[in-house]
Amino acid sequence: MKDDMNGAQSLIRTLVDSGVEVCFANPGTSEMHFVAALDSVPEMRGVLALFEGVVTGAADGYGRMAGKPACTLLHLGPGLANGGANLHNARRAHTPLVNVVGDHALYHKGFDAPLESDIDSLTGWTEGWSRTSTDTGKVGADAAAAVAAARALPGRTANLVLPADVSWGEGGVAAAPAPVPAPDAVPDSALAAVAEVLGSGESTVLLLGSGATLERGLVAASRIAAATGVKVLVETFPARLERGAGLPAVERLGYLAEQVQWQLTDVRHLVLAGATAPVSFFAYPGKASELTPEGCAVHTLAALGSDVVDALERLAESVAPGVAPVLQEPSRPALPSGELTPQNWAEVIGALLPEGAIVSDEANTSGLMIPMVTAGGPRHDVLTLTGGSIGQGLPVAVGAAVACPDRPVVALQADGSAMYTISALWTMAREQLDVTTVILNNRAYAILRMELGRVGAEGAGPVARSLLDIGGPDLDFVKLAEGMGVPATRATTAEELAEQFAAALAEPGPHLIDALVPSLI
Amino acid sequence: MKDDMNGAQSLIRTLVDSGVEVCFANPGTSEMHFVAALDSVPEMRGVLALFEGVVTGAADGYGRMAGKPACTLLHLGPGLANGGANLHNARRAHTPLVNVVGDHALYHKGFDAPLESDIDSLTGWTEGWSRTSTDTGKVGADAAAAVAAARALPGRTANLVLPADVSWGEGGVAAAPAPVPAPDAVPDSALAAVAEVLGSGESTVLLLGSGATLERGLVAASRIAAATGVKVLVETFPARLERGAGLPAVERLGYLAEQVQWQLTDVRHLVLAGATAPVSFFAYPGKASELTPEGCAVHTLAALGSDVVDALERLAESVAPGVAPVLQEPSRPALPSGELTPQNWAEVIGALLPEGAIVSDEANTSGLMIPMVTAGGPRHDVLTLTGGSIGQGLPVAVGAAVACPDRPVVALQADGSAMYTISALWTMAREQLDVTTVILNNRAYAILRMELGRVGAEGAGPVARSLLDIGGPDLDFVKLAEGMGVPATRATTAEELAEQFAAALAEPGPHLIDALVPSLI
Repeated sequence: MKDDMNGAQSLIRTLVDSGVEVCFANPGTSEMHFVAALDSVPEMRGVLALFEGVVTGAADGYGRMAGKPACTLLHLGPGLANGGANLHNARRAHTPLVNVVGDHALYHKGFDAPLESDIDSLTGWTEGWSRTSTDTGKVGADAAAAVAAARALPGRTANLVLPADVSWGEGGVAAAPAPVPAPDAVPDSALAAVAEVLGSGESTVLLLGSGATLERGLVAASRIAAATGVKVLVETFPARLERGAGLPAVERLGYLAEQVQWQLTDVRHLVLAGATAPVSFFAYPGKASELTPEGCAVHTLAALGSDVVDALERLAESVAPGVAPVLQEPSRPALPSGELTPQNWAEVIGALLPEGAIVSDEANTSGLMIPMVTAGGPRHDVLTLTGGSIGQGLPVAVGAAVACPDRPVVALQADGSAMYTISALWTMAREQLDVTTVILNNRAYAILRMELGRVGAEGAGPVARSLLDIGGPDLDFVKLAEGMGVPATRATTAEELAEQFAAALAEPGPHLIDALVPSLI
Repeated sequence: MKDDMNGAQSLIRTLVDSGVEVCFANPGTSEMHFVAALDSVPEMRGVLALFEGVVTGAADGYGRMAGKPACTLLHLGPGLANGGANLHNARRAHTPLVNVVGDHALYHKGFDAPLESDIDSLTGWTEGWSRTSTDTGKVGADAAAAVAAARALPGRTANLVLPADVSWGEGGVAAAPAPVPAPDAVPDSALAAVAEVLGSGESTVLLLGSGATLERGLVAASRIAAATGVKVLVETFPARLERGAGLPAVERLGYLAEQVQWQLTDVRHLVLAGATAPVSFFAYPGKASELTPEGCAVHTLAALGSDVVDALERLAESVAPGVAPVLQEPSRPALPSGELTPQNWAEVIGALLPEGAIVSDEANTSGLMIPMVTAGGPRHDVLTLTGGSIGQGLPVAVGAAVACPDRPVVALQADGSAMYTISALWTMAREQLDVTTVILNNRAYAILRMELGRVGAEGAGPVARSLLDIGGPDLDFVKLAEGMGVPATRATTAEELAEQFAAALAEPGPHLIDALVPSLI
């Protein structure tokens, strides 16, 4: 086949040889040769989604769990725009992701056909790596470069724009995998400087970010803490956090500025490991944007993109030789009873969370108790809303389930946020993914109710409040799920939720529970 | 109130004074002061959508029907990205639209908070007018300028980026409406040149585009045709086309290059009125991009943005003084019977289309017969998929219904396309809009099945075909609609469709019919 590949075939062959095995796709006419080429490279699995935000969010979830990129297939500029919000979240998660964007044939672009647009503006917006393939013979090399760029730490979106004629042209050449640049090693001097801070006896926080929130980083940090008394925190929205019994338990930095200020009270030193100094999620009148307290010095142990885990392990060897990490003991809440509340639904999840679960957490205000009630549960991963653009949770669950078919995926999903990318349910049904979705249905943009007060927006009356109220009509997620082929039930009590959650976990394939949990706010 | 307005209040007051009465919104924290300000300017109607693609598509539909802009309210870069695809369609429709994009406070932008992104890349992509308000005292003036820019012919998206501190700051000043630049008048010399072409006796086509597809333009073109024998065509995807009994009937240029070539066979002159010379929607191997035949001269009567209707009327006075237009006689198909087919469902619509209907047509392959069977029906408007980015039809129907509450809206909607912006149904229910949606449910991306063959993609096998098949699981649009508060029924025969369509039209508020129409392809 090598001698008569077209561009699309050489692209897919190169991607597969570079370790990219899954393509989340929502194609159009300009991508038909890519679609056709899937039959000639059976190692690439095509997963169809009905909306591009599901495509990009699934690629994000896949990349977070697989530790290597999936690719997407998107239809020109508008398809890329539709996928943009979850590419934003993927950017904040530093997820490796190869974004294949079909375009008009090069010779067709000058004619301003209806779907023509300035794709470079959109690829630029993703702040990743971008290249347009302009030569069929080099598509393979472009693809190999894209994979390497996506994988280089800390991970990024690599956009490969594929004009239709470059895709259908003959003379494609598959390329060997390109070397992934090694991360910068953290110099001994940086370790020594931090070690000195840790030895000062002054109140210090070690903040873990990208690359440091899996077992190795957490264990090293816990050893450092055990030896030096440093307090360890994880950034507010980690891309992937390993936790549960047998792992060091770490608190996350809060979402609200007030929480962060409380967590950092009297802290004199903030040591960053793959994280940045905390800033307020939004601006609020009269409140500071930077949340590092006055008089607190910021030290960078390991910058984003450096070998953060190696730095933590070397620091642990230096300041905590022979010291063991503190590991979480098993502990679960009891199964609660009664009408669902913002607290007891979380206890149900904590009581029943299965071993090895992957939790896609977009529960927002409804999920405040979740970290607490699952801390001592069986070992699991948590994937969070890294970029703050809601509508990530269900697509990320799709991608995680594709990456880890042997692990149960639990999507804890706020109602308003679910609606941005609700067709992710259809892909769950189509691929029979083992995802249990729990919708926290409080019939409001509850977080905005809270924010309306926090920003000091005076004069808000019934008109303003009605724009934050998504009841009227109430969303019936049971019908929505069934309309897309996902079996669904409704829970109004803790007992019902427990029974339905256990049943959903026991049966393979996707399920949804529409949990009528009243708003906290 | 004038002396103590904040920026948001001055913005909304100015918009209202400039004729902008509706805000389609999907807000977040950075937009809370805008939301709160809605209570202080009750003339602005806020319409909530659950996804930004519905917001922008609704603003497009509103602008097409109202002939003036609605505004949007979007949440930072990711919200704008989510609205991007339907802004692309609005750009191709030349719809006046004021896009209000909230952003972080100016002083907060440098801190790279999670939702920070390069909004200018995205506003630039829309190829409209863009400005960031940086001074609370000038927000009103910026808003007035945005409305004027949006309204200047041929119409465009005006992006107004509103940082949160500029919005909440005190010292807002409402501005008077800014003058809308008058369109260029077409010079007599251009009319004379076209008149000479029309007098040549050679085969000529007059192609009508933006501004020329409503009654005045159509009547003038028909008079010119009656006097000179010129053939009148409308561009493939008009933003708004008036048609039906009592109006001149005009054929649209085809979607497929082969259709256009047939329509333009032996044509020696192509005269453009608000349109551009036809190009192929996509590129196909070995086929031309430009569809103007060899040896056909292209003449511009009136360029986009000039006073196209005035030019047509003056030309009619010159070449067809006293000549009457040819008006369509009333005629309707008979009500068909039997299992639904790609033909008979259209006949049902043709037989029952109500007087004054607004038809949002995203029926795609299923809708090929619709223009024919509705040509002699009662007078109606057709809104089409101008930019080719699917997922426009339901949001445009929302906007049209808000703009024209006294007219019935009929959304003819392909199944695959519906899923991009399906939550438009919820806004229809919330606002109790009189929209009857007919889903053409063939359980496939049928257009892509056709295109897979047309692009000559060889080697496509079961994997490729499965990516164009959106059955498995079948989408149940009755459940999806009911899940969002829209009453729904399913039709499998022409009789059922007729009964359900008539019942839906007879009752106010939204309805959906899931019509199981087999694929043509």
